[in-house]
Amino acid sequence: MLLLQPKLKPMKYPTSELNKVKRGAQKASYDQEVVHQLLDISPICNVAFTVNELAMVQPINFGRIGNKLYLHGSHKNRMTTALIETGKVCLTTMILDAMKLSKSAFHHSVNYRSVVVFGNVKELTTTEDKITGLKAIINHFVPNRWENCRYPTENELKATRVLEIEIETASAKIAAAPTEDKKKDEDLEFWAGQIPIKTICETPVPKNDQHSGIPTHIMDFYTNHKNGF
Amino acid sequence: MLLLQPKLKPMKYPTSELNKVKRGAQKASYDQEVVHQLLDISPICNVAFTVNELAMVQPINFGRIGNKLYLHGSHKNRMTTALIETGKVCLTTMILDAMKLSKSAFHHSVNYRSVVVFGNVKELTTTEDKITGLKAIINHFVPNRWENCRYPTENELKATRVLEIEIETASAKIAAAPTEDKKKDEDLEFWAGQIPIKTICETPVPKNDQHSGIPTHIMDFYTNHKNGF
Repeated sequence: MLLLQPKLKPMKYPTSELNKVKRGAQKASYDQEVVHQLLDISPICNVAFTVNELAMVQPINFGRIGNKLYLHGSHKNRMTTALIETGKVCLTTMILDAMKLSKSAFHHSVNYRSVVVFGNVKELTTTEDKITGLKAIINHFVPNRWENCRYPTENELKATRVLEIEIETASAKIAAAPTEDKKKDEDLEFWAGQIPIKTICETPVPKNDQHSGIPTHIMDFYTNHKNGF
Repeated sequence: MLLLQPKLKPMKYPTSELNKVKRGAQKASYDQEVVHQLLDISPICNVAFTVNELAMVQPINFGRIGNKLYLHGSHKNRMTTALIETGKVCLTTMILDAMKLSKSAFHHSVNYRSVVVFGNVKELTTTEDKITGLKAIINHFVPNRWENCRYPTENELKATRVLEIEIETASAKIAAAPTEDKKKDEDLEFWAGQIPIKTICETPVPKNDQHSGIPTHIMDFYTNHKNGF
């Protein structure tokens, strides 16, 4: 009897009322690989948190290992304090790819690649766990950077709060379609089209006290992002 | 008697527990002109809102007239629904300018230009007010675009919710310093420096059914942003 090889299904994040994309559902993906890839190319995320019953938002860098994200801050930081208190977090990343100009005001939109994450927050307290989180953050900042800088001292570690976010669920949304107009608008004389937007990096600038060449991990980051994130 | 011309003081947003910048206070500004300029060059903001006691965040485009901001969405949109319910909002904009790599992991940071706004939310309901808000949004998207596209129909207006946010207070933060290291770290052999980041726009791409030239307002946007926002 012949056993058929089961086709590998992509691992997906569960959909719920929280993360199910309603508007533009055809652009949504719950595929873990897609979500993780988009998180990895986004230098910054925006984190929501609550202070005195008001929802606030703050941009910050982060790290990822598997389905866990890492944030850091000082012990006085109101964002990390609030997140530890609630134990829950929603954060988002977005890379803007184009301004889409349609003939009607109503259909103007943007192309983008975004992720929304919902997760459970835990403060890391052991040296080993904190180092794991900080390494992920520094290597998300610039890959292989951790291996090319001075590690934190005991005092620096003490001064830093590190949070681990276990992704409970998430969604990615990729809008990459051309500008659209209703049939009845197509003959209007207004200009329609896209203005492509790119986030790029430029040639690394060494601190002025350094005369050695630019190391591989910095050149790799530059090469990978000089034409866009 | 000679009357001295009073020196014009810049208009400032009031500082409170909400918006007073604690970390990196020397980078902060409450100057309305600085806040407004940074808002105007940011294509997207990230808005915080609360659903079932969870703080959430969503990126969206917006408009500004004086100390008022405008957001829009469909009537089913959970963000606009939540904002109308609470009547309060916190939102942020950020343009990333550089990855700053220091010799120590601890001192890695970024250069950026960001704004945090705290405001009061009101839903606009008359046709005139909604048009005012939508015009501000479209002309923030691309200046002078409103005058170069088809205005919303009555049905499109009905399908669109427009919110006005009166800025109660706000802060801008501009980090533009070179990479810094502690004296004791300066002689370490690791590379330190900056990787400049830019958000740029590229040559506008007309929809394929158009053969006329690119109009002035589109070329102006391109020229103003081809080297960065």
